[in-house]
Amino acid sequence: MKRLVILGSTGSIGVTTLSVVERFPEKFQVVGIAGGSKVELLAEQARRFQPRVVAVGNPEAAKELRERLGGFRGEVVHGPAGLEQCATLPEADLVISALVGALGLVPTLRAVERGKAVGLANKEVLVAAGALVTKRAQECGATVWPLDSEHNAIFQALHGHRREDVRRLVLTASGGPFLRTPKAQLEHVTPREALQHPTWKMGAKITIDSATLMNKGLEVIEAHWLFGFAPEQIDVVIHPQSIVHSLVEYIDGSFLAQLGVPDMSIPIAYVLGYPERLPLQHLPRLDLAKAGTLEFVSPDVDRFPCLALAYEALARGGTAPAVLNAANEEAVAAFLEGKLKFSDIPRLLRAVMESHVPTEVDTLDVVLQADRWARSEAQQRIAAGVSPAR
Amino acid sequence: MKRLVILGSTGSIGVTTLSVVERFPEKFQVVGIAGGSKVELLAEQARRFQPRVVAVGNPEAAKELRERLGGFRGEVVHGPAGLEQCATLPEADLVISALVGALGLVPTLRAVERGKAVGLANKEVLVAAGALVTKRAQECGATVWPLDSEHNAIFQALHGHRREDVRRLVLTASGGPFLRTPKAQLEHVTPREALQHPTWKMGAKITIDSATLMNKGLEVIEAHWLFGFAPEQIDVVIHPQSIVHSLVEYIDGSFLAQLGVPDMSIPIAYVLGYPERLPLQHLPRLDLAKAGTLEFVSPDVDRFPCLALAYEALARGGTAPAVLNAANEEAVAAFLEGKLKFSDIPRLLRAVMESHVPTEVDTLDVVLQADRWARSEAQQRIAAGVSPAR
Repeated sequence: MKRLVILGSTGSIGVTTLSVVERFPEKFQVVGIAGGSKVELLAEQARRFQPRVVAVGNPEAAKELRERLGGFRGEVVHGPAGLEQCATLPEADLVISALVGALGLVPTLRAVERGKAVGLANKEVLVAAGALVTKRAQECGATVWPLDSEHNAIFQALHGHRREDVRRLVLTASGGPFLRTPKAQLEHVTPREALQHPTWKMGAKITIDSATLMNKGLEVIEAHWLFGFAPEQIDVVIHPQSIVHSLVEYIDGSFLAQLGVPDMSIPIAYVLGYPERLPLQHLPRLDLAKAGTLEFVSPDVDRFPCLALAYEALARGGTAPAVLNAANEEAVAAFLEGKLKFSDIPRLLRAVMESHVPTEVDTLDVVLQADRWARSEAQQRIAAGVSPAR
Repeated sequence: MKRLVILGSTGSIGVTTLSVVERFPEKFQVVGIAGGSKVELLAEQARRFQPRVVAVGNPEAAKELRERLGGFRGEVVHGPAGLEQCATLPEADLVISALVGALGLVPTLRAVERGKAVGLANKEVLVAAGALVTKRAQECGATVWPLDSEHNAIFQALHGHRREDVRRLVLTASGGPFLRTPKAQLEHVTPREALQHPTWKMGAKITIDSATLMNKGLEVIEAHWLFGFAPEQIDVVIHPQSIVHSLVEYIDGSFLAQLGVPDMSIPIAYVLGYPERLPLQHLPRLDLAKAGTLEFVSPDVDRFPCLALAYEALARGGTAPAVLNAANEEAVAAFLEGKLKFSDIPRLLRAVMESHVPTEVDTLDVVLQADRWARSEAQQRIAAGVSPAR
């Protein structure tokens, strides 16, 4: 019986995780869940899974949750301290880190420091604090397993093979809804259009990041920290069908790839069951002959400069990726609110990154400070309505 | 330093094996080579690699070889006994079994009985005598590693993963030159047309087998014995680009696939170097974006009945696959000599298989007898010019 904590249980990854868990009641026990403001869903999850601890965003949500839950025997906690308590429950074997954005950073780091196994969906954790998290994981005997479909694919394609035999990692990207949209038109795309992801159903933030290719850029940074390969060993190829989830190229010219229907249950189940696989009989099965054609295209960094920005942040090093990530969160929020044009997202990010002098990521404070600085810098530039330098 | 014997060194696989070996002189020493009638090439290989033993087909070839080799310090042997001596050299660590057809059966079995590691390109060995070879391998501590690109792909995609988590194996097939040829036209295709393989450069026998899909049928039988999965867990999908070399589907819906340029150096190098990979820097690298499109199509057993015949032989069991294989060798030879129509190949095979009552494969004699019977039966039917029952 594996005991699980799910940080971000009401988000897309959290809900899917619980749906997998529910199919294998003999294998898993949920001991902690943490959500933000979706109190109704959180209450339902708490009733269904009877965790020992439920964490919510603030005291008001905690009060409402307690009222909804009536005779609930677990503990309801809130705020950053509650999140941390949930992330570090002594009985937890595996912590699923699926909070959105920088919010997940502290609790994930705390779980790592307790030597937990961590299933990581929150890529911002490694993007912002990869140097710190991987160092602590090593020191504390924690393992970090990727829940992202791409990194999970690489994890599977590396498993059992010698890492010194790896030539490079190849992350696939759907290309998003604007894969074939001419550059000029990208100026005018709306949030509604950008939210139409062709293959994956995901949260709003990551869907916009897929449309700008920033999601893939962040994944390049994440892959660097997860697997320890140099940036020049990490490539991206556009694959609109989202069936090949990523590949590893070995020094003999062999590629190993993981494929499957685009359903997050698969990578989630792999991490939940690891090192065993869970039989997901209910999923539609991939039929290659029905899929028919798998296409691959080189990414166009001219139309999607966010991908190049991510490599640049990795090359600058230190706090540069944290700054890129934080500024991107602000940029996406502003775009969704209609305050920033789609094509201004990379412009804003470049401007913020260019005004930043990176420092070494050796403490959490350094990361959080860079994060705050980048948000404020981005917000000011958005508020000023100035289209920043290209 | 691994010491190698290469049975079939003058064939397509043998030549490629030696070309890989030559790139890593610090890793490999060739102690034995065996060829048939290509004495000139064999002499050149003997001079280049200085093996202790060279085996040729007959006394005349042996005499010619000795004359050509002048001061050669190794031993020149011939005939079945010579082949066997070469296959069982005490100093050999790895025996590459790449003789064409049933000829490879005895020497490969002898290598297995000496507990050698065997790299198997000669699929007929497992097709005809899978039950016997796998039983002996287990008893004698021998390992059989697949050199076929498809089985090697599966071997790589299984490596490090739990076999109880496997749902099925999916062998890819190029579909051959007649993938899109209408059924009526298949009656009239010539050997020259059938020898035009779209993606792989191989010997004549296997190229015709690719055109009839019998090659894939034989590979299904081979996969059954190599990996121990039931026939209903082994599927085939047509993939004209020959880039995805095969796949393994796991119970969670994950597929692991091995991809690469269609070059036999890759699977050969994997077996030669196993468990390490050899850096094949000289090979063209697979660029998925340049490849552009990978297609997958269901196999059409109406136009290519040989694939179904192989499953049928596996279901009949015992000597049925040996009979199918031997009859197929005769049929292909007759087709290449213009004595049998392309579309008569499966008709002949069905007729031969239907006149055979399978017996258990518990000794080599049983296999060899079934082989002889099938050849004679096939030859008689070809000579009679009777188009056998459909």
